Amino acid sequence: MTRDVTVSEVGPRDGLQMVRHVVPTATKLRWIAALHAAGLPEIEVASFVPPNLVPQMADAAEVTRFATTLPGLHVAVLAPNLRGAEAAVAAGAHKITLTLSASEAHSRANLRRSRAEQMQVAKDAAAYVLSLPGKRPSLEAGISTAFGCSIQGEVPEADVVQMAVALAEAGFDSIGLSDTSGYANPQQVRRLLRAVRTEIGARCDSLHLHDTMGLGLANVTVSVEEGIRIFDSALAGLGGCPFAPGASGNIVTEDLVFLLESLGLRTGVSLEALMEARRILAEALPDEPLHGAFARAGRPTGWKEAA
Amino acid sequence: MTRDVTVSEVGPRDGLQMVRHVVPTATKLRWIAALHAAGLPEIEVASFVPPNLVPQMADAAEVTRFATTLPGLHVAVLAPNLRGAEAAVAAGAHKITLTLSASEAHSRANLRRSRAEQMQVAKDAAAYVLSLPGKRPSLEAGISTAFGCSIQGEVPEADVVQMAVALAEAGFDSIGLSDTSGYANPQQVRRLLRAVRTEIGARCDSLHLHDTMGLGLANVTVSVEEGIRIFDSALAGLGGCPFAPGASGNIVTEDLVFLLESLGLRTGVSLEALMEARRILAEALPDEPLHGAFARAGRPTGWKEAA
Repeated sequence: MTRDVTVSEVGPRDGLQMVRHVVPTATKLRWIAALHAAGLPEIEVASFVPPNLVPQMADAAEVTRFATTLPGLHVAVLAPNLRGAEAAVAAGAHKITLTLSASEAHSRANLRRSRAEQMQVAKDAAAYVLSLPGKRPSLEAGISTAFGCSIQGEVPEADVVQMAVALAEAGFDSIGLSDTSGYANPQQVRRLLRAVRTEIGARCDSLHLHDTMGLGLANVTVSVEEGIRIFDSALAGLGGCPFAPGASGNIVTEDLVFLLESLGLRTGVSLEALMEARRILAEALPDEPLHGAFARAGRPTGWKEAA
Repeated sequence: MTRDVTVSEVGPRDGLQMVRHVVPTATKLRWIAALHAAGLPEIEVASFVPPNLVPQMADAAEVTRFATTLPGLHVAVLAPNLRGAEAAVAAGAHKITLTLSASEAHSRANLRRSRAEQMQVAKDAAAYVLSLPGKRPSLEAGISTAFGCSIQGEVPEADVVQMAVALAEAGFDSIGLSDTSGYANPQQVRRLLRAVRTEIGARCDSLHLHDTMGLGLANVTVSVEEGIRIFDSALAGLGGCPFAPGASGNIVTEDLVFLLESLGLRTGVSLEALMEARRILAEALPDEPLHGAFARAGRPTGWKEAA
């Protein structure tokens, strides 16, 4: 399977962040298996947070272990700190993401730490992963609220650049920019990508976009032009952030795949199989609104995937 | 009022194309007045089609005459042929748009004429408008299905270029490309704009986009980069085309304004006043779904219009 671009599905993790009722483990496994069957190369399956804080993620280890049995799947997880990273490693995760917030206000609300404190937490976890003997998981840092914050408003670009440089120096393999609030516009995305990549180059390689203002796919478009080839998204646009009021879901996986294939970039993902996975999601989360233009409109007459 | 870009509201015309119940004239006038009060510089208020075919537009002359009393408003209308153009002139329209379809199949289904026949119809109407003594209305041609057709599928770009050249030769002041089906992707938009503008230059100056596949604002983004400064849209994304099955509404005026202002382009439109106009629309068309990210999410913390 030749792919030109990686669609990293985050529904089972980010998509569940706002869902109140705890999804049974068996349902998560069916959902993840259907996402894998649709050809998604990477799925963020869980967050290794304390179960008493986030009951939704109490089965993180079991879900991660299951995901590692799916052939060829790159199994990504979130870890808030060293302890989470240790648990993620024990469960066999292939990729571990630490998140930091570029907004001081969001960092304190969401992570309950200042940015400086969270940077130290991320560095400690990174040092542990980097010191593992043998083949270690890849290590990603996600910079939240990189394009604006619903609490603080504007986030200075210099803060994001500075954070990215510090994370690159700490040894993170990959640094992603997250539009947690969904405030980014295409001009800003282009400008910030250039500013960060001027400092740390292609190590800034992925984007995590929300669709709050309806600009998610416009932001993907310019990012593709800037050379980004890894995008997070969630089936049916599930998601949101409890500490980013008004933020709506992630960009919709189905529509992202449609856009990327239309741009001539092979995703390896089957849109029809994503529609199957949507049916599982609709059964599992009957109270969640499922978004998406492709699901509503269907395949355009004569449209074909990238050759 | 300095504007960098023209948002041309088409709700009262294109937006009503799929609406079954005839909207009372008084309601249309309230709606148009609210759109004007929001700062929209141009509104397509009616289509001068035979009232027995489209009862929704039976009041075209009255609506147009009213619109011309609104200070500073550029009053645009659609005319299907010479007779429609004559009626539009009599009602005092400032801009008359003739539409042609680049897809033979769509032309026959929607206009009941071949492309060649419709080209002659457009030329006859243009000759009439161009021969008017004194200050004449501006004359626009809209090339429908320029980016694909839900009946025919792919529309060859050479067909669109050829049609644009013929329309420029016929004396049309302005030639717009319409994504009637909402199938366009950003790469295609950039490519076709360049192909057409290589032949006829800046006379190809406007885009009419639908949001069927969720790519409307991504397509605006690249069009802005290509130098386009006139965009059609409809409040709340009203619209659709009875002969383009599956096509959803026009791009949403509110979200278009938000995007353009975010890109630093002054629209002269008040988003808060558009929310007022939305309330009128919700009352007038209680059965129509009203779309839009800005209406749902509100103004981002700290966000400001272009200075």
